[in-house]
Amino acid sequence: MSKPTLAVVGATGAVGTVMLDILSSRPDVWGEIRLIASPRSAGKVLRVRGEDVVVQALSPEVFDGVDVAMFDVPDEVSAEWAPIAAARGAVVVDNSGAFRMDPDVPLVVPECNAEAARNRPKGIIANPNCTTLSMMAAMGALHRQYGLRELVVASYQAVSGAGAAGPKRLYDELEAVAGDRTLGTVAGDVRKAVPDLADSPFPAPMVLNVVPWAGSLKDDGWSSEELKVRNESRKILGIPDLKVSATCVRVPVVTTHSLAVHATFAEPVTVEGARAVLDKAPTVVVLDDPAQGVFPTPADVVGTDPTYVGRIRQALDFPNTLELFICGDNLRKGAALNTAEIAELVAAELTG
Amino acid sequence: MSKPTLAVVGATGAVGTVMLDILSSRPDVWGEIRLIASPRSAGKVLRVRGEDVVVQALSPEVFDGVDVAMFDVPDEVSAEWAPIAAARGAVVVDNSGAFRMDPDVPLVVPECNAEAARNRPKGIIANPNCTTLSMMAAMGALHRQYGLRELVVASYQAVSGAGAAGPKRLYDELEAVAGDRTLGTVAGDVRKAVPDLADSPFPAPMVLNVVPWAGSLKDDGWSSEELKVRNESRKILGIPDLKVSATCVRVPVVTTHSLAVHATFAEPVTVEGARAVLDKAPTVVVLDDPAQGVFPTPADVVGTDPTYVGRIRQALDFPNTLELFICGDNLRKGAALNTAEIAELVAAELTG
Repeated sequence: MSKPTLAVVGATGAVGTVMLDILSSRPDVWGEIRLIASPRSAGKVLRVRGEDVVVQALSPEVFDGVDVAMFDVPDEVSAEWAPIAAARGAVVVDNSGAFRMDPDVPLVVPECNAEAARNRPKGIIANPNCTTLSMMAAMGALHRQYGLRELVVASYQAVSGAGAAGPKRLYDELEAVAGDRTLGTVAGDVRKAVPDLADSPFPAPMVLNVVPWAGSLKDDGWSSEELKVRNESRKILGIPDLKVSATCVRVPVVTTHSLAVHATFAEPVTVEGARAVLDKAPTVVVLDDPAQGVFPTPADVVGTDPTYVGRIRQALDFPNTLELFICGDNLRKGAALNTAEIAELVAAELTG
Repeated sequence: MSKPTLAVVGATGAVGTVMLDILSSRPDVWGEIRLIASPRSAGKVLRVRGEDVVVQALSPEVFDGVDVAMFDVPDEVSAEWAPIAAARGAVVVDNSGAFRMDPDVPLVVPECNAEAARNRPKGIIANPNCTTLSMMAAMGALHRQYGLRELVVASYQAVSGAGAAGPKRLYDELEAVAGDRTLGTVAGDVRKAVPDLADSPFPAPMVLNVVPWAGSLKDDGWSSEELKVRNESRKILGIPDLKVSATCVRVPVVTTHSLAVHATFAEPVTVEGARAVLDKAPTVVVLDDPAQGVFPTPADVVGTDPTYVGRIRQALDFPNTLELFICGDNLRKGAALNTAEIAELVAAELTG
């Protein structure tokens, strides 16, 4: 077949915007690219691959002739529309939570389980949650070498993980507090200084603060985000009995999630060995020379594609265990880039 | 004896300033209070207990007649001067790292090991590191009930943990970035926007960032801060074989350290049981109702005395294990308050 036709559903959102940038910079495997959004955004003109493209309203017909459809829309929109697109013949790559744990939907990180993308009985492939994704390339490489058994994770999650409203809110709060050098010293002073929290996507001030909450409340006090890290890591890595505990915390960073990871393996592991494994992983960059001030930080890696790993230490008291600090751009590898990579796997399969 | 004489060494520093506030608000057990600092700060007038007190320069003679001397100065200053004060008859309560692991110096958190303060062969009692201290009241209470065996900790540490220069730097950086709503989206853009990092106490931008580094580099890639969490927790709790791994990360918060704690016990533990134990601990406050948006955040608890615990969950895959999110003011319970509490134990012993 000639170059496949791609649809980008949710083209005007936070991830959609990064997706157009990514589609414009990667090797061009696509024929037509259709941009699709809610009727409210239809008619907007967006640039992709250097060309203006008019955004079309979501409808069943808009998928006619589409080979691959990327979805970055809320769960309920994906739940309704991904099957419609699939029924019209498109292979859907969905970045919502609607299908990730469906046993008939593969959950794919190309570095970990590219082959799973070929087995898609519903015509749908799911893209993992951004927090899980931020560590999968690195953890997949270590798992193949040492056999991953346990993960204890604490996250430092960027506000853009909550959508475009997240950065807007953080910038608003930054402007509200800048210049007052007394704030952050008395309980509640930051809460009073920022705009009304009723208008925030976050349950507490984000500026001069960290907030131990992301997602929605599930059983026994767990957040949806914390359970995603557990369930999605197990599915992607193919380790159904992987032991996982995560605590997810939002921090005043615009984009790029960080994770402090305590990882226990079946086999003995050394810092030198782990570093060699990670150095060989094509999409992983090791930044680990604290004597020279070298470790990954969100501000230094945002907007780039790799997964960055630093602070690699052998646990002193836990056998076969490494401590790591991992950073990944939650809009790129954590969302749009991984979606594009899955779509490219499908394109290669369709044209190959 | 009449009310004992107290010396505050390092009265003009970040912790010293909080100490004067604490001394002014707690039940007054002290006779004379002498304020002591480097010769550079001598002659300054500071207020404590509603009275002006002239700061005296550090000298051997200034300790004559002093019963208790609190030190909050750099390690090397404590190492030199605490023995001099002790030789002049003062009981030293030292908040530096100089003596914490000395087997002849007790390391005291009154909620955990008040009795240890009486056994001080060198006349010196050490106050723990602020990161360790932020969780000790809560972990001590849980240890007494369930028998603590393992701790995996990730920290979210405030900039004031680095001294008075930390908040100044963060406020400077906040002012430098406020109003630019593009920052934090391209690698290095924040680094370019903030004042010269050569003038910062931190190795990377703190605003719109998190930095996985605190303290100095020790063996095998560990930071001094991470090793303190391990060694000091073992000594305070009296568990020499406690398994500990910590990753210490600085976040853009002025004051109040937070810790994501994965704690494994000898005995089975439930959320309800742990909550009951923590509710009974006098200096611990449980803030844990995520359905109502209730969990501790630094901005909501800074400037207060308790240790706050929230997000209490039973680990799904690890037996006898709890996940917790703990906040504590690093200048109060994490430093000045605990020092004052130790000094009061000594005052009660001397006058009792």
